[in-house]
Amino acid sequence: MDRAPDVRTGKLPAVFLDGLSAIFAERAHLADAMRRQHGSSESHFAVSLPDAVVFAHSTEEVVALVKLCVEHEVPLIPYGAGTSVEGNTTPVRGGVSLDLSEMNRIVAINADDFDVTVEAGVRREELNAALRDKGLFFPIDPGANATIGGMAATRASGTNAVRYGTMREAVLSLRIVTPDGRDIRTSRRARKSAAGYDLTRLMIGSEGTLGVITEVTLRLHGIPESITSAVCGFETLEGAVNTVVQTIQLGIPIARVEILDDVQMRAINLWSKLDYPEVTTLFFEFHGTESHAREQTEMVGQLAADNGGGAFQWSNLPEERSKLWKARHEAFYAAVGLRKGAIGWPTDVCVPISRLAECISQTKKDLEGASMPAPILGHVGDGNFHVIFVLDPDSKAELAEAEALNKRLVKRALDMDGTCTGEHGIGLGKQDCLVDELGEAVDMMRVIKRAIDPKDLFNPGKIFSLDQDQ
Amino acid sequence: MDRAPDVRTGKLPAVFLDGLSAIFAERAHLADAMRRQHGSSESHFAVSLPDAVVFAHSTEEVVALVKLCVEHEVPLIPYGAGTSVEGNTTPVRGGVSLDLSEMNRIVAINADDFDVTVEAGVRREELNAALRDKGLFFPIDPGANATIGGMAATRASGTNAVRYGTMREAVLSLRIVTPDGRDIRTSRRARKSAAGYDLTRLMIGSEGTLGVITEVTLRLHGIPESITSAVCGFETLEGAVNTVVQTIQLGIPIARVEILDDVQMRAINLWSKLDYPEVTTLFFEFHGTESHAREQTEMVGQLAADNGGGAFQWSNLPEERSKLWKARHEAFYAAVGLRKGAIGWPTDVCVPISRLAECISQTKKDLEGASMPAPILGHVGDGNFHVIFVLDPDSKAELAEAEALNKRLVKRALDMDGTCTGEHGIGLGKQDCLVDELGEAVDMMRVIKRAIDPKDLFNPGKIFSLDQDQ
Repeated sequence: MDRAPDVRTGKLPAVFLDGLSAIFAERAHLADAMRRQHGSSESHFAVSLPDAVVFAHSTEEVVALVKLCVEHEVPLIPYGAGTSVEGNTTPVRGGVSLDLSEMNRIVAINADDFDVTVEAGVRREELNAALRDKGLFFPIDPGANATIGGMAATRASGTNAVRYGTMREAVLSLRIVTPDGRDIRTSRRARKSAAGYDLTRLMIGSEGTLGVITEVTLRLHGIPESITSAVCGFETLEGAVNTVVQTIQLGIPIARVEILDDVQMRAINLWSKLDYPEVTTLFFEFHGTESHAREQTEMVGQLAADNGGGAFQWSNLPEERSKLWKARHEAFYAAVGLRKGAIGWPTDVCVPISRLAECISQTKKDLEGASMPAPILGHVGDGNFHVIFVLDPDSKAELAEAEALNKRLVKRALDMDGTCTGEHGIGLGKQDCLVDELGEAVDMMRVIKRAIDPKDLFNPGKIFSLDQDQ
Repeated sequence: MDRAPDVRTGKLPAVFLDGLSAIFAERAHLADAMRRQHGSSESHFAVSLPDAVVFAHSTEEVVALVKLCVEHEVPLIPYGAGTSVEGNTTPVRGGVSLDLSEMNRIVAINADDFDVTVEAGVRREELNAALRDKGLFFPIDPGANATIGGMAATRASGTNAVRYGTMREAVLSLRIVTPDGRDIRTSRRARKSAAGYDLTRLMIGSEGTLGVITEVTLRLHGIPESITSAVCGFETLEGAVNTVVQTIQLGIPIARVEILDDVQMRAINLWSKLDYPEVTTLFFEFHGTESHAREQTEMVGQLAADNGGGAFQWSNLPEERSKLWKARHEAFYAAVGLRKGAIGWPTDVCVPISRLAECISQTKKDLEGASMPAPILGHVGDGNFHVIFVLDPDSKAELAEAEALNKRLVKRALDMDGTCTGEHGIGLGKQDCLVDELGEAVDMMRVIKRAIDPKDLFNPGKIFSLDQDQ
């Protein structure tokens, strides 16, 4: 264990530090740089350092760590790739940041069953690389190259969710270490089960507050025979959104459909050196047999034309597709790149699809007078969209302005019977919104949290505060 | 309230009975016949009477009942259509059977959002009748005309699950009355959300042990442009199962695929006056645009031929389809009809699809020497199948024999990393199996149960016993 001169770990008793050393040896870190890395986030939240960082290599090590933390009442915060955006991994009460990124073995690929078991630290791009020659893929794609464990913990989704679902649907089973130090599996590998409480789904989206996910068994899909991508700009935002709504309502099994507004398209053109028209644009992808993918493409092309879409540029060339989705995946960095030295705060809401056009246009209107760039983009097939506030990190006024805009955005979504977050989770940033959304149901979450983690040591301070029952 | 002379409600204090009368008036029943109806099940479990039966008409009445039961420590067992088969609604400790079948209003159809909110007592056939003229349908089909609340409580699935998922995927949100008497909604109406713990999924499959479901918001689907059904007999069981496995592995989005073995086909021919060949048979259904449904039908027809299938009789005539699925839905009654005065005990397991052929053939072999008829049928696209033990109700020896066969069946499924129940739930019948399947994870379920229902009043004695921690 490094014990550099800049260490400020007075909070951790020596006997605890000795315990860490015994389990992790040189994989336990107290140095400032490592702690800072694990106390920062990609978004606008204040840095809050863990007292130590450890890199686990096995579930057995996690069990030992959990027992040590519980014995000494030290908080424990599971950490994957650090790509979450609501402060989900920030150690607000110090403690140990448990980095799982080196638990990155692919445990078993069951190609005939279309499933795979991976350690929590495997990243989704690595997984897809390992699956490719089996003709399989893992569809959940939140943009960032997140870890599978982190994606499960935040109930991530992304561009393919409209067809393939979210982590809620993708996970078959979890291996977790519970706060009482047990190493359990939440389910077997059958594709469905009615055997007892759905612990798998309870853990998915619990953001590390109920235990540590160390392995994940995922459903996979066959790489489609044919993949077609398309891009189309629209005269109006309503035209773009209505194209999506009609596609969903016709039951066309579109694989991806993403909206990017004019501001976001300008950002992408600048960042990725492209020359798309700077208007509200949809990116599409269609999966199927060759004839079925073509049929879907033609049907949606017609809908786009009916709704004031411009040229419907489609292609089944892999390089065209890559260009499109690379640009989409870099949208966050492109947005932040609109302004030198800026930081980005991506927020998200999700509404019933019949209210989507209204919700996006009202939001767009609300953003018109904003003093910072704030592009809109999202997974519109699910009714889910993001605003990225591109902020001067030194301006408190801008942060306050963005907070007010975000608050109005969430209220707008809730008034439409939507949710305050489609995929980013609650973390630190949306705790009040969660109460606005679900009211007393949050107390039931608190009851569960208190029962499973009675000392409040697992990622404490996230999702809800424990002492504010309704 | 009826207080018939055959009442045996000494267990319920007078003040409690007065409370029931105040809430339910003539909808509270103490008479023997009503109690017997709610204490029996469709399967082989012993009758165990509730002390009272009430019919709720509103969530407010359920709240009042919950408060009354908690105050007087009286068990409360939610009851829908009584079609569950693992003793899930049997009041093993007496108390009040809360019949929700008269809470059967369709609260709101949101056709543009493809969702509907119903009271818990709505039955799935009623729901589909109400949806038909909107061009929508609710796909989950467990065979029995169950209530939507009961289907949520047992995490039901059935013939369409291979394409459309189970109740886990179908439910957007629940309205529940918690054991502390609160009336909460678990989620909003957005198609996805990352807002806090997934209380919706925790309640689905909890069999009434964590609260009472009073309303359910469901995802719907558009009635497909084209529906094709098909039936095909096979030379061998392996040929039939391999056709299914290959269909799934090719990613063909088949809507239904059901297996029926030779014994079940004989039962169906007798019961429904049909003349199918009495060999292992697959029933199929394909949904899509006309060209896509045809493409799927042709692909699967070819797979069937490659696997020793006989004539692949397909049709897109509604009357042919109805005949097929009516026969399938009556399979349980047809099986029981094989033997005069018999009762049926339908068990189910689910295994990874690569092990399905092996699991069914070993089971078939094990059943060869059985002294009762025991047809096999199931939702093979999910790896899920049933054995129906057709029992002489007066023979303890036969029951013991079926129990031994069932135990070996479950062990076989677990040894293949499968589950002891794909869709029937645990109820009374599979509590030991659940522990064999998930081990210490069951303790985490117990922790949750104790926290949410500290007096153990909600459907007590189901899923697990509370005093047998690992």
